[in-house]
Amino acid sequence: MGCSPRRRIRNEYIRGNKTALMGEQQTTRTRMAGVTGLEAFFAPKAVGVVGASRTPGKVGHEILAALIAGGFEGPILPINPNAEEIEGLACYPDLASAEPTPDLVIVTIPAPGVLETVRQCSRLGIKAMVIISSGFRESGDKGNRLERILLQEARRAGIRILGPNCIGLMVPGQKLNASFGGQLPPPGRVAYFSQSGSLLAAMADMGREYDLGFSRMLSIGNKADIDEVEAIKALGRDEQTHVIGGYLETIDDGDAFVREAERVSRDKPILIMKAGVTGAGERAASSHTGRLAGMEMAYECIFERAGVVRCGSIKAQFDYARAFATQPLPDGHHVAIIANAGGAGIMAADAIEREGLALAELANETTRTLTETLPETASTNNPVDILGDALADRYEFALNTVLDDDAVHSVLVLLSPHAMTECDATAEAVARVTSDKPNKPVVACFLGARRVENAKTVLRRAGVPHYDSPEAAVATLKVMADYARWRRRPKRVVKLFPVNRRKVETIIDRHLRQGAEDVGEADAHDILEAYGFVTPRGQVATSSEQAVNFAEQIGYPVVLKIWSPDILHKSEVDGVKVALTSAQEVMDAFDLMMYRIPRKVPDADIIGVLIQEMFTSGQELVLGMNRDPRFGPLMMVGMGGVMVEVLKDVAFYPAPLTAQEAMEMLVRTRTYHLLDSDNERQDVDFDAIAEGLQRLSQLVTEFPSFQEVDINPFLVGPPGTPPVAVDARMRVAKKQ
Amino acid sequence: MGCSPRRRIRNEYIRGNKTALMGEQQTTRTRMAGVTGLEAFFAPKAVGVVGASRTPGKVGHEILAALIAGGFEGPILPINPNAEEIEGLACYPDLASAEPTPDLVIVTIPAPGVLETVRQCSRLGIKAMVIISSGFRESGDKGNRLERILLQEARRAGIRILGPNCIGLMVPGQKLNASFGGQLPPPGRVAYFSQSGSLLAAMADMGREYDLGFSRMLSIGNKADIDEVEAIKALGRDEQTHVIGGYLETIDDGDAFVREAERVSRDKPILIMKAGVTGAGERAASSHTGRLAGMEMAYECIFERAGVVRCGSIKAQFDYARAFATQPLPDGHHVAIIANAGGAGIMAADAIEREGLALAELANETTRTLTETLPETASTNNPVDILGDALADRYEFALNTVLDDDAVHSVLVLLSPHAMTECDATAEAVARVTSDKPNKPVVACFLGARRVENAKTVLRRAGVPHYDSPEAAVATLKVMADYARWRRRPKRVVKLFPVNRRKVETIIDRHLRQGAEDVGEADAHDILEAYGFVTPRGQVATSSEQAVNFAEQIGYPVVLKIWSPDILHKSEVDGVKVALTSAQEVMDAFDLMMYRIPRKVPDADIIGVLIQEMFTSGQELVLGMNRDPRFGPLMMVGMGGVMVEVLKDVAFYPAPLTAQEAMEMLVRTRTYHLLDSDNERQDVDFDAIAEGLQRLSQLVTEFPSFQEVDINPFLVGPPGTPPVAVDARMRVAKKQ
Repeated sequence: MGCSPRRRIRNEYIRGNKTALMGEQQTTRTRMAGVTGLEAFFAPKAVGVVGASRTPGKVGHEILAALIAGGFEGPILPINPNAEEIEGLACYPDLASAEPTPDLVIVTIPAPGVLETVRQCSRLGIKAMVIISSGFRESGDKGNRLERILLQEARRAGIRILGPNCIGLMVPGQKLNASFGGQLPPPGRVAYFSQSGSLLAAMADMGREYDLGFSRMLSIGNKADIDEVEAIKALGRDEQTHVIGGYLETIDDGDAFVREAERVSRDKPILIMKAGVTGAGERAASSHTGRLAGMEMAYECIFERAGVVRCGSIKAQFDYARAFATQPLPDGHHVAIIANAGGAGIMAADAIEREGLALAELANETTRTLTETLPETASTNNPVDILGDALADRYEFALNTVLDDDAVHSVLVLLSPHAMTECDATAEAVARVTSDKPNKPVVACFLGARRVENAKTVLRRAGVPHYDSPEAAVATLKVMADYARWRRRPKRVVKLFPVNRRKVETIIDRHLRQGAEDVGEADAHDILEAYGFVTPRGQVATSSEQAVNFAEQIGYPVVLKIWSPDILHKSEVDGVKVALTSAQEVMDAFDLMMYRIPRKVPDADIIGVLIQEMFTSGQELVLGMNRDPRFGPLMMVGMGGVMVEVLKDVAFYPAPLTAQEAMEMLVRTRTYHLLDSDNERQDVDFDAIAEGLQRLSQLVTEFPSFQEVDINPFLVGPPGTPPVAVDARMRVAKKQ
Repeated sequence: MGCSPRRRIRNEYIRGNKTALMGEQQTTRTRMAGVTGLEAFFAPKAVGVVGASRTPGKVGHEILAALIAGGFEGPILPINPNAEEIEGLACYPDLASAEPTPDLVIVTIPAPGVLETVRQCSRLGIKAMVIISSGFRESGDKGNRLERILLQEARRAGIRILGPNCIGLMVPGQKLNASFGGQLPPPGRVAYFSQSGSLLAAMADMGREYDLGFSRMLSIGNKADIDEVEAIKALGRDEQTHVIGGYLETIDDGDAFVREAERVSRDKPILIMKAGVTGAGERAASSHTGRLAGMEMAYECIFERAGVVRCGSIKAQFDYARAFATQPLPDGHHVAIIANAGGAGIMAADAIEREGLALAELANETTRTLTETLPETASTNNPVDILGDALADRYEFALNTVLDDDAVHSVLVLLSPHAMTECDATAEAVARVTSDKPNKPVVACFLGARRVENAKTVLRRAGVPHYDSPEAAVATLKVMADYARWRRRPKRVVKLFPVNRRKVETIIDRHLRQGAEDVGEADAHDILEAYGFVTPRGQVATSSEQAVNFAEQIGYPVVLKIWSPDILHKSEVDGVKVALTSAQEVMDAFDLMMYRIPRKVPDADIIGVLIQEMFTSGQELVLGMNRDPRFGPLMMVGMGGVMVEVLKDVAFYPAPLTAQEAMEMLVRTRTYHLLDSDNERQDVDFDAIAEGLQRLSQLVTEFPSFQEVDINPFLVGPPGTPPVAVDARMRVAKKQ
């Protein structure tokens, strides 16, 4: 292994004139010109390892060893000024002297030296760096500053960075293992990116064990440059990738995430395991909506909007990925079960109901065909029980038959190993049928362990995902059906209502100018009217005679409210009196307020008393919005009144809303089902509620200064009566 | 293998006189005398196989083969009149000629011949039969009759029967495999009974694969004699059994199940997978409580009462069983996590919060000890992150340290396999520590697959349960902590209030005599008063003057209700008028009712109009009871009013209630947290609600004729004000 000749060449480069070096750099640049985004990570021609080490156990050695062991076919270039050769490869003192110049550089040297490496890459026109080194943002302020400088430098030079503080990169199809995450998994259709390196390593290990192939595996570490959004964007375009999986602890740019994920989800399922979900949702909020909309809720509804499949655990994610990677999407939620024992069939049927799937109702013809061939005691309805003595041929027949039924959207094959059961032959039969009829997803669960071990391998090889419990199989069919429905959803059309924007603008500008966050009742009233809401009629009276006068115009009963820009919480000063039904009562209430309240709050500028229309019937709802710092405005609808936070009967969805989305939100509440039931109640105008939601959605979309809005109660009557926005609480602030 | 000599002896028996036979029978009887219950199943001396067959694939052959392969050391006696020997064993034409007479008989012949076999066993004094044969209750009416006759015959003879329609029995410690459920699992501490044979077989297979040992495995099949109750009773007494697991689709004798399970749970955890749970809860009910209390709810709360650990899937059950079989019970719900990577620790912490466990707050001393020894960047708070380069010694130190902390009740050890991680040595270290400090449960989750395969085996052998995901490990710790808390619960003392039973008895007797199911308002009112409830004051007026008179005595506002034994649903005939505040309004309402209602329902016998006290403040709750046909009276409490079924904010528990149980029910509702919050609301007398629940519990326990009771609204005010049972709906029927 002569490393000296190379060394000599390298030394010539170092001692040689700058022009020669620049020429080399130029060439590299030209070679990289066509490469955009992450292509150089996915198919590099030559890989440099900065910080390559001779010492086993050191990261710089492990990475190099992994690259060699992985079988990467291009040049592997160890960079280390203190070594001549490592693991039989000629070593270079720096990147500039490496020959050829690598187009992908793996950096393992301590943090302080990394910036210089970025500069070298910049000079050499290298566009792709995997920075394994830690000591950056995760280690405190100093590291954070270093990371930012490094990123600036890289951006300026057009360099893309994976990491820092990551375990590297795996591209099985290229035999590229630039990581210390263990051996490469088999090549395949699933890409995976992870904010936790050890989880990526565990995934790779599981891939090897259970034959799940990966296209790319990215340890995104501190996500300085390539974060979840960049990863999704690049993997969305990547032809080798059909399914995208990711493990995330934080999502930093929520807007971009939703936009990119929604775009990519149209073609490829994105499966995200989001950890750190609980306990993080607590924060101060003044509205019901704000208090109800925790982080958890935000993730839930933006994932739903973007078509992202949320995974409750790594195991579930792996389960789902195996099905998405091998099976077609189902056309609906109706599942057929084939089993050779009652117990497993019942458990699967339980899970189907729990998950919100349905047992397919088999066509008469299907049942007839099954009945003609299966033994008399078999159950030819779904779940199809082909009995304990079923051999492989009976499975084959039953699976073939139910797959032909249009009412069946997916099939779960269950096997319990009885003494006579042909486990392997059954697996082969299932494989045969699914290869003949590849248009519907088929998943399997063979119960037990040793007896079905080989059958599981047969299934796996044939691309039929096998699950360790009926429940796991059903959960997988469920997310597939939901994702498929998301893909089929109609085009989103957000209706724009004619509104008085200028009016709202004026009010908000005034608040922002004055630094006032809470919007008072009069302003809130004006804002809502400007966006087409009906609010209670009312007028501010300054004398008891005027009060009675207004009350008679409005009609009894009326509400009296103290009217002062300085009193936000009226009821705290006894400034609200409801259900006044006569002139006398109005007069008394007016005089008592005007007498008592100035004594309670002497500094308040009291304008008068609002005489307001009172509603005695109708259903109380709440419409709301909470602006999530990451994901923007989340709309809420649910049961209103004082109990809203206790009942928590609310649904969320990100604005802007389409009419369909508004209605879907509503249907998700229990309140809807209450109002929709025909138990002697008057009808309710659901379209009017959906319209209210859309109008509010338009308001908060057009004015990003709204941080929180609660319309509560939003009083709903029968069709024809417009709902009334009785009370509203709004908070504005400069867009963050 | 000389079978002829035996044959000769047998023939002598057959030809011999009856007395000799009876003598033999007598001997057997004497031998069996000390045996009660299922002991003969668990440690038989000789096993007969009636229907033993030469033909592989036939059940009668498979069972015999399994018995031989299992290595049972006592005599195995094939019974088949048409064979001389099977599998090298001498064959007997019938049980009477078998030598010695078996004390356990496995029956595999077709159903019609089984009754005769029972009779033979009866004559021979054989007390234990496993009836594998199908063709009984599961096959229709005829089979059902046959099963009942067979059971009668067996009962008369004191014979216990496992099955029919089952796959048999396994007792690994006796090398007894009298089943066609595959090979024996290792012997161990877990007993399992299953209503599904194939599931039992799958469990045994999993036990072999994952080294989980079983004491006994019972396929209970049709449960003709030995059902879940008998199994739990016997296994509760069985010294070889420390954990009881079961798979059930139905529970037939709910009362006995609860009683037996509650008794046995005090010493041994009972883990039940109950399938067929969904979709079964629908049935007609007239009360809110009845409609809200589905089957699912019934199982949920009786399992809770009896301390039974409910398992959501077979996988979960297996997960739980492994921990209960090897680990001590935790003293509380506080878990410490030790991890060498952030990701897994976060996932585990998420799961801990989701499951209602808590991260243990480490003592200062613990943190100090950890800080002194661990690297600087390690996290010495819980989750303890010992970093990616942690070797086995660091795990050993950290585990030792946290186990010494009194605030830690259980420990989860997480390992992510990095390049340098010592998987096997770490497993050995964990095994060492747990064997030194065996007083707290320790469970492990080593992520990945191949790299940790051997480490998992090391853990398993050392009795440290390993889980395939942090979530599964945490779920297991949760059920252990809950079960331990159940075991520590204070002794149940049900308070008995002094009540007027006689009064209630009279009313109920009248209803039952007349075949009237619904209890009218007046009677309901009397029943509640007899049991110490406060009800609204009221009197029936027959003239408008009298109405006003009563109203003035009661005080405004009042409610008017038409009073007629023939009108149950008053509001349907406009027979209810609320919030009347003056003499004029009362008079008008009275006259209108008396004028209009007789025209609407001419046949009704109208007595007058009830003038009733009206409550304008207080919180509306519902107290209820629904008598479940299997499990008896289930009590309910929750938010009342018209929305009860929509809000579904209710909690259930089986009667009779202790004070503590009543309060726990209350605390489980969201309503409690609403009432308990200090948001300007008046205080609520929770003890008075709990007392109301106990009084209702006493009522329905003392009178099993009550099928459904709803007290709604049950109006609750501040402490000192007794709650008022404003309205009640009751249904009685002869005890079923």
